[in-house]
Amino acid sequence: MKEEKKISTAVIRRLPRYYRYLGDLLDKEIIRISSKDLSSRMGITASQIRQDLSNFGCFGQQGYGYNVELLYQEVKHILGLDKQYKMILIGGGNFGQAVANYSDFARRGFEFVAVFDANPAVIGTAVGNLVVRDVATLEDYIKQNHVDIATLAVPVPAAQQLGKLLAKAGIKGVWNFSKSDLRLPGSTIVENVCLSDSLMTLSCKMNEVEILKRVVRDVW
Amino acid sequence: MKEEKKISTAVIRRLPRYYRYLGDLLDKEIIRISSKDLSSRMGITASQIRQDLSNFGCFGQQGYGYNVELLYQEVKHILGLDKQYKMILIGGGNFGQAVANYSDFARRGFEFVAVFDANPAVIGTAVGNLVVRDVATLEDYIKQNHVDIATLAVPVPAAQQLGKLLAKAGIKGVWNFSKSDLRLPGSTIVENVCLSDSLMTLSCKMNEVEILKRVVRDVW
Repeated sequence: MKEEKKISTAVIRRLPRYYRYLGDLLDKEIIRISSKDLSSRMGITASQIRQDLSNFGCFGQQGYGYNVELLYQEVKHILGLDKQYKMILIGGGNFGQAVANYSDFARRGFEFVAVFDANPAVIGTAVGNLVVRDVATLEDYIKQNHVDIATLAVPVPAAQQLGKLLAKAGIKGVWNFSKSDLRLPGSTIVENVCLSDSLMTLSCKMNEVEILKRVVRDVW
Repeated sequence: MKEEKKISTAVIRRLPRYYRYLGDLLDKEIIRISSKDLSSRMGITASQIRQDLSNFGCFGQQGYGYNVELLYQEVKHILGLDKQYKMILIGGGNFGQAVANYSDFARRGFEFVAVFDANPAVIGTAVGNLVVRDVATLEDYIKQNHVDIATLAVPVPAAQQLGKLLAKAGIKGVWNFSKSDLRLPGSTIVENVCLSDSLMTLSCKMNEVEILKRVVRDVW
């Protein structure tokens, strides 16, 4: 009997953090770690860690814990980080540039290969070592070059339009920084990033005690 | 008997999305909505929506659904968005500027009141309508002015140092964009934002089918 196991988005969202922490442990030449020790470093409970990792068949050994290198390689594989991705950036303005320069993405296998913009003042300027192309040439570029992921750093109406074009062109992934969630037809996966959401999460947590009081009152 | 109810971080992280979608419905003058309709708009299951909102005592009525305005106001309150927050930005470079200009934060009650940097070339320049101050004056500024939230857009070593200073000064919230998670003593709440995490989540989802096959194999 085939058992289908659906991994929750919440678990997937925690994996990059595991990956970063395990990478730090490797840098510190730590060979093994208990869920308890990892728990105190990451600020999540040990039982949550054991539960999360068991989803992927990773079980720590009683009295030994996890082998850091093996777990790191496994999480790396699950995250698809043992592959190479060609990325394009659409929107070469200040925000797009800030995203492109945020991290050494290439080190993790994500290589920016082209940048596009609609603004004549931006077209022809440099973002990193790439010259910004006219977005009118985007469709042709995708036909002639292999592109895995498109990063969208454009206003909402343009994002909706470009999203459709990207889905139609068969782009596998869209990393969307426009201020509205994008949902695309077909097999294109979208990761919507709304920076304000994390600020609202922060203000929520800052008020949590008060909210809990409310919830408790409601439960009465 | 007092019933303590702990709201999971995963639920809190979904709330800003509810808030955005409910705001859009209000803009469209939609008065009520079923969990099913909201589900198809947001791309999460109706049962998840009912479960999430019931955490906060928000229950839809059978055959009516949710009153959009009431639910919006309730989520707004839970997120702490019916309050005003004074924010400072530490790190007035390209990335800090991109964050500050990302959205009309003031409209949601988050007002940037000062910007700080350590770089003499950046001090004295303008970010929006604020003149970048010397970070050496940060402690004095906090003593003399009310500050709720500090946004950190600085490299990791500076973030660790500044985090301690901010916690000691009694800052309630830190919105941390430095590339390493920050954990602070005392009652200061930190929201760590690592942009690369969302890219890794995307690549994970792009490989999900293959991963599921693996998990299924492991389950056998």
